Amino acid sequence: MTNSRIAMPALYSRVMSAEDAAALIDDGTTVGMSGFTGAGYPKAVPVALAERINAEHDAGNPFQVRVWTGASTGPELDGALARANGIEFRLPYNSDPVAREKINRGEMAYFDMHLSQVAPMAWQGFLGPLDTAVIEVTGITASGDLIPSSSVGNNKTWLERAKRVILEVNSWQNPALEGMHDIYYGTHLPPHRVPIPLVRADDRIGQPLFQCDPEKIAAIVLTDIPDRNLPFTAPDAAAGAIAGHLLAFFEHEVAMGRMPPALLPLQSGVGNIANAVLTGLIDSRFEGMTSFTEVIQDGMLDLLDSGKLLMASATSFSLSPDAAARVNADMGRYRERMILRPQEISNHPELIRRLGCIAMNGLIEADIYGNVNSTHVMGSRIQNGIGGSGDFARNAFVSIFMTPSTAKGGAISAIVPQVSHVDHITQDVQIIVTEQGLADLRGLAPKQRAALIIEKCAHPDFRPMLEDYYARALVSSYGKHAPSLLTEALSWHQRYIDTGSMRF
Amino acid sequence: MTNSRIAMPALYSRVMSAEDAAALIDDGTTVGMSGFTGAGYPKAVPVALAERINAEHDAGNPFQVRVWTGASTGPELDGALARANGIEFRLPYNSDPVAREKINRGEMAYFDMHLSQVAPMAWQGFLGPLDTAVIEVTGITASGDLIPSSSVGNNKTWLERAKRVILEVNSWQNPALEGMHDIYYGTHLPPHRVPIPLVRADDRIGQPLFQCDPEKIAAIVLTDIPDRNLPFTAPDAAAGAIAGHLLAFFEHEVAMGRMPPALLPLQSGVGNIANAVLTGLIDSRFEGMTSFTEVIQDGMLDLLDSGKLLMASATSFSLSPDAAARVNADMGRYRERMILRPQEISNHPELIRRLGCIAMNGLIEADIYGNVNSTHVMGSRIQNGIGGSGDFARNAFVSIFMTPSTAKGGAISAIVPQVSHVDHITQDVQIIVTEQGLADLRGLAPKQRAALIIEKCAHPDFRPMLEDYYARALVSSYGKHAPSLLTEALSWHQRYIDTGSMRF
Ligand SMILES: CC(C)(COP(=O)(O)OP(=O)(O)OC[C@H]1O[C@@H](n2cnc3c(N)ncnc32)[C@H](O)[C@@H]1OP(=O)(O)O)[C@@H](O)C(=O)NCCC(=O)NCCS
Ligand SMILES: CC(C)(COP(=O)(O)OP(=O)(O)OC[C@H]1O[C@@H](n2cnc3c(N)ncnc32)[C@H](O)[C@@H]1OP(=O)(O)O)[C@@H](O)C(=O)NCCC(=O)NCCS
Repeated sequence: MTNSRIAMPALYSRVMSAEDAAALIDDGTTVGMSGFTGAGYPKAVPVALAERINAEHDAGNPFQVRVWTGASTGPELDGALARANGIEFRLPYNSDPVAREKINRGEMAYFDMHLSQVAPMAWQGFLGPLDTAVIEVTGITASGDLIPSSSVGNNKTWLERAKRVILEVNSWQNPALEGMHDIYYGTHLPPHRVPIPLVRADDRIGQPLFQCDPEKIAAIVLTDIPDRNLPFTAPDAAAGAIAGHLLAFFEHEVAMGRMPPALLPLQSGVGNIANAVLTGLIDSRFEGMTSFTEVIQDGMLDLLDSGKLLMASATSFSLSPDAAARVNADMGRYRERMILRPQEISNHPELIRRLGCIAMNGLIEADIYGNVNSTHVMGSRIQNGIGGSGDFARNAFVSIFMTPSTAKGGAISAIVPQVSHVDHITQDVQIIVTEQGLADLRGLAPKQRAALIIEKCAHPDFRPMLEDYYARALVSSYGKHAPSLLTEALSWHQRYIDTGSMRF
Repeated sequence: MTNSRIAMPALYSRVMSAEDAAALIDDGTTVGMSGFTGAGYPKAVPVALAERINAEHDAGNPFQVRVWTGASTGPELDGALARANGIEFRLPYNSDPVAREKINRGEMAYFDMHLSQVAPMAWQGFLGPLDTAVIEVTGITASGDLIPSSSVGNNKTWLERAKRVILEVNSWQNPALEGMHDIYYGTHLPPHRVPIPLVRADDRIGQPLFQCDPEKIAAIVLTDIPDRNLPFTAPDAAAGAIAGHLLAFFEHEVAMGRMPPALLPLQSGVGNIANAVLTGLIDSRFEGMTSFTEVIQDGMLDLLDSGKLLMASATSFSLSPDAAARVNADMGRYRERMILRPQEISNHPELIRRLGCIAMNGLIEADIYGNVNSTHVMGSRIQNGIGGSGDFARNAFVSIFMTPSTAKGGAISAIVPQVSHVDHITQDVQIIVTEQGLADLRGLAPKQRAALIIEKCAHPDFRPMLEDYYARALVSSYGKHAPSLLTEALSWHQRYIDTGSMRF
């Protein structure tokens, strides 16, 4: 057989069905998959593997694998395998609802990691061996190099570490993607690490293709399946208000001379609020902006199109179907203004600190001292994972967290006396912004932070409750540095569990 | 007048008494002082300033200053000023008991920061202007450069940022210190930051002296006062057991090929446990070690003397009087094997990650999931501050936290259901070790971590209580990813407050 995406004839013989490829994966082994958001993940082999697992389970045989990826993936990967009860252990990030339920019922082990640390920790060796890599690519060159797909994630590392490689060559991916990627091959384990030679968000420091020993390629599966990312809903009033507060803050910082007029490289989480902020920047006075972020989402694309954003560096696309179609239709042009890198580079603390990123991320809840919970609802139920938020928040020039002031139709306050789980300590949280307002916490001691967060960020329905708690803590707390009432600190969460609302 | 430590005659006229120098500091202004642990802090001007403040207060006048330093200092600085109620706002670290009491009574504002971020944040500008720098130096050269003292801390930044400089030239400091320091002048604000060209712990990337515009030098005070660090007590049984577990872990990692036989650059907090570990390394099989750390303490010196540690890089000395005398007597030799750097370099995330430090720090309490509280006793009373522990823990090759399994004579368990404050999230805590044993948490999901921490680290008196809590959480928790019982999670702390013990 021939295929225009496989330019190395010696590999034709490895082309097989997804079922045959899945048969190469054994029970109890570790599989490193491509995928970062709904982009660039394998779409056929995981489904076939899930079918195989179902069949084994039906026959009374145990069958589970350990799954490593870049970050979240699509339903054909996490959804299918979790539904088949086929995942024993998962890292580093999940947002699939089926897998989330398994994890929160205690049926699936999940190791929630800083995304920048996945590749280095895989190299450190304590995670155990990587048996199989299953990687979606756009094509294979005549010399056997691999053209990356719509996300890079940890693919370089999986290709290097795995004993055996299974490729999905997806002809839905635009061949013009070739040349957009910048795969850096200069990482090492200590004591051999050297500076990463990137000083601007648009620097290219690597090569456009993955290297892979053709001997290791055990199977090639041909697919033609679209990436799957959710459409965005139009920004609601809360998202619009948050964007407004943030733009005013940027204006103020530029006016004070504390940020350059082109701002600093933007990092932005995904979701509707982040999108509203990016869209808001289109009508701003800032010109010549760049981004150094994890994912390129719709708002980033609009900002590029507006001419205000000069270029975007990321590790993946997280585009709605409409935006994906737009990019696919004009890839030649976008390729000059977008760079996809391995996530150990897109999220590298060294680079985030050097570039001085403006980090903008979502949260589940924040407390009156500015600790942020990004992951655990009521302290014990995982929502997604910390993802790259820790990489960015700690090393950013300014670390911003954004949220509506309430959740679940107003039953829950996003500002609480004490967060039920901490992902970002107050030292890593400089700005908290809700639709109510923006609290600039830089340089403030705990009690100064508490007063400001309650005043600026809390919803008016919950503000008096917070004021009451804090006033009593000021009187009765064990220590008065960061006053707290231990018997009440987590009572709002318990009340929600008991009554369905944090309100009295 | 002449003084052998001041080789620039034009500066003789600026020599004055500490009282006259202190009179240059106004109420409400910000003072950046030298000092990092009990080393290299100014010892005369702060005392004179405290006297002035007392006099103003006695006369019914308000007088307080904002105090920035490198980290903790000595009693003549924090103690004297806090006792005079002279500090309105303090950053970035404090371990003075008088100041601690003020902070915990709610009478002094304290901004507890990552030590690597103090200098960059001072440059960012939101902390406000720096009016006066008060810096201890060893001497002044003929061209007006300053010979640093026994700590570097943020002195470079204070000298550059301050409008006015007061120097304390301390003739107790050994003139042979000249040449030991490596002051890097290549830092910038983004978008102008470049890679920091350090690839080994013993690289020198800067210059031995501070630059300072002589025009800014408003006063020079001559002193002859020793640094003040506490003597170490001999390691107790718990410290010895902790060191033993840790050395066995290092042996194992080397045997597995996961660490080189010379280990990786060591970072170590201060205190008796850290000292016991360093002393234990003297009798180990590891050779050719280096350290990249914040402070050089007694154990580090012994390890240098043993020939097993080739060199030590830090920002300060924290030596007992005996050890300080040893170093002073043989400075010429030690100078070749020690480097003191600005704390933004000794603690730089870029460098810690690149070098792959082995981070070893103390803690107040850890919880069953591996979250660590380093700072807040019972969640609200600050002990010292986060210091550099966050810089090291997040970026280390392996992040280790060490503690006896109980505190306050056994009334308090260092392992609790949920920490009352979080400084280090589970992602940044790979190893927890108590005298009971060592829990290797790398690559484990929350429930795996909980089982291991309870088994290996908890004190036998508290282990059944933790097992009971955890067993019930497994049944009744809202989510089963990281099971918790919100009504009990902080109840051990409240019991301690109520009864003086966490025991039933
Ligand atoms: C925190 C995070 C979950 C917020 O996501 P979002 O899409 O902006 O916010 P949403 O309001 O849609 O919230 C997501 C879910 O959490 C729930 N939620 C939000 N706040 C909550 C709270 N305080 N209590 C309980 N549930 C809450 C929402 O109700 C929603 O649940 P649902 O889907 O069942 O309705 C998301 O930003 C995240 O996963 N962050 C961690 C990783 C990260 O930051 N990545 C980017 C870094 S590079
Ligand atoms: C956490 C830290 C306070 C431990 O200090 P240490 O000297 O090793 O430990 P000690 O056992 O002497 O504890 C110090 C005090 O805290 C108290 N303490 C310790 N654990 C406690 C607990 N779980 N509950 C209440 N009090 C506790 C001790 O009783 C002691 O108080 P005392 O002086 O009134 O007796 C110290 O490591 C620290 O300040 N860390 C943060 C900064 C840091 O890590 N710096 C180095 C990084 S570069």
